[in-house]
Amino acid sequence: MPFKKITIIGLGLIGGSLASALKKSNFAATVSGVDTDQDSLDYAVKEGIIDEGSQDIAASSRDAEIIVISTHVGFIREAALSAAAAAQEGAVITDTGSVKESVVSEIEAALPQGVHFVGGHPISGTENSGVRYSDPGLFKERRCVLTPTESTDAEALRKVASMWEAVGARVFEMDSQTHDMLFGTVSHLPHVVAYSLINSVLSSDNPDTLFEFAGGGLKDYTRVASSSPEMWTDIFRANRQNLLRAISRFEESLSKIKAAIENDDESALRKELIKAKDLKKKDLL
Amino acid sequence: MPFKKITIIGLGLIGGSLASALKKSNFAATVSGVDTDQDSLDYAVKEGIIDEGSQDIAASSRDAEIIVISTHVGFIREAALSAAAAAQEGAVITDTGSVKESVVSEIEAALPQGVHFVGGHPISGTENSGVRYSDPGLFKERRCVLTPTESTDAEALRKVASMWEAVGARVFEMDSQTHDMLFGTVSHLPHVVAYSLINSVLSSDNPDTLFEFAGGGLKDYTRVASSSPEMWTDIFRANRQNLLRAISRFEESLSKIKAAIENDDESALRKELIKAKDLKKKDLL
Repeated sequence: MPFKKITIIGLGLIGGSLASALKKSNFAATVSGVDTDQDSLDYAVKEGIIDEGSQDIAASSRDAEIIVISTHVGFIREAALSAAAAAQEGAVITDTGSVKESVVSEIEAALPQGVHFVGGHPISGTENSGVRYSDPGLFKERRCVLTPTESTDAEALRKVASMWEAVGARVFEMDSQTHDMLFGTVSHLPHVVAYSLINSVLSSDNPDTLFEFAGGGLKDYTRVASSSPEMWTDIFRANRQNLLRAISRFEESLSKIKAAIENDDESALRKELIKAKDLKKKDLL
Repeated sequence: MPFKKITIIGLGLIGGSLASALKKSNFAATVSGVDTDQDSLDYAVKEGIIDEGSQDIAASSRDAEIIVISTHVGFIREAALSAAAAAQEGAVITDTGSVKESVVSEIEAALPQGVHFVGGHPISGTENSGVRYSDPGLFKERRCVLTPTESTDAEALRKVASMWEAVGARVFEMDSQTHDMLFGTVSHLPHVVAYSLINSVLSSDNPDTLFEFAGGGLKDYTRVASSSPEMWTDIFRANRQNLLRAISRFEESLSKIKAAIENDDESALRKELIKAKDLKKKDLL
């Protein structure tokens, strides 16, 4: 068993799934969970997802070798620094947030001596949230991005990578700016678009009738748009600049298709719709 | 066996699936297929999807009691009128197109005496196209919309409804204007949005790298955007007015979310993202 204790702060879908996967893989003798919601803690202990639960970040972080911050993006910095202030010499703090640049730079700037931080982002999740949806297989064969900086401790990075590999993830490294640009486009933009689409249907006459026929294409969006509004509010705000650039690119693409429809320009329209075909050829779709 | 012969014009995913489902359900003694592609016809005969294949609409329509036009939307009118000119007294022509108002009114206006037309639209399909993806279960438990008008023959409507029921579909009736408004919003708009999203990612730097991380949210759109460009060009053009209105509503919803992100207005942003939650409560998502 490589570690004595791992503490996970924030027992939602990701934190709970990581805890139960770590328990199953015997990666740590003790997996502790911290959450503000006592019901979540009680449930997680009862189901064997964690060994012990607490509402106190400092108390639970004191003797942990790895501390994983798995809260909403807007609370990661505060939770990481509370944990760091209590942590033992050599402790490694990491997170699971969907936005990395601001999180990593703010935490690194404020981190006390002797405690390490490594930014992380497991690419998994469902539209569900909460510890009750915990699934120890959630990270299996999925990617996990780590975003080390010049000041990242090599041993700390190795420990965090080994933790994700222990739960079945494939670990990738990239810098936090690249991460945020990439996920601004492939994840945050699609969520903005899905929320916009669902909202536009809701603003129509008789939205209930419309959703009854959602099988025609709308259904593919509803999973995305039923994700946690609180979580996505945080993510959109934290990745504001990249996301606004991605939205602008999207608006340009939309306006080309719209113009072709307005002008009833068959060849222009076909040209726009055929672009995605290349992806299929490259096996990327 | 209720019918002697049904002819299906256009052996794509829908036409091929309907043919094989009709064969399985013993709804007609003979199921004939018409397509311009001889390979598709040969494949369909060999696989028992149709009893006989032809490239000649008139020859194959002459003695059919029901003729189903399952071509791209842009060719339905021409195919229906070619079939009608050859059809016997009392023959019923129907179609499977995703747009109804223009198709139905143009065909009704030109239909010869003694031949009936009923507009239809089975709400099923996948991102795949072509007779090789035929699936006799494609319509099972799925909706099929029929769009009768004041001049629709009641017996013809009954025959078409019974055909769809024989292959497992649940038949709904609505007028063609309502149909096009509804599907402009729940089907055609989501496809415009998906194509725009994929195109915007393709216009980024390093699109291949981006698509490697599509699991973060983009994946939900790729199925939609990998549908047939030819088919969707026709659909978007045929439902132009409803679709442009739906796009405008979508742009309004997007601009609200974009403004909230630009202004870093947390409460406005949360307000936009929480709207979809009501749908979950109503069990519509």
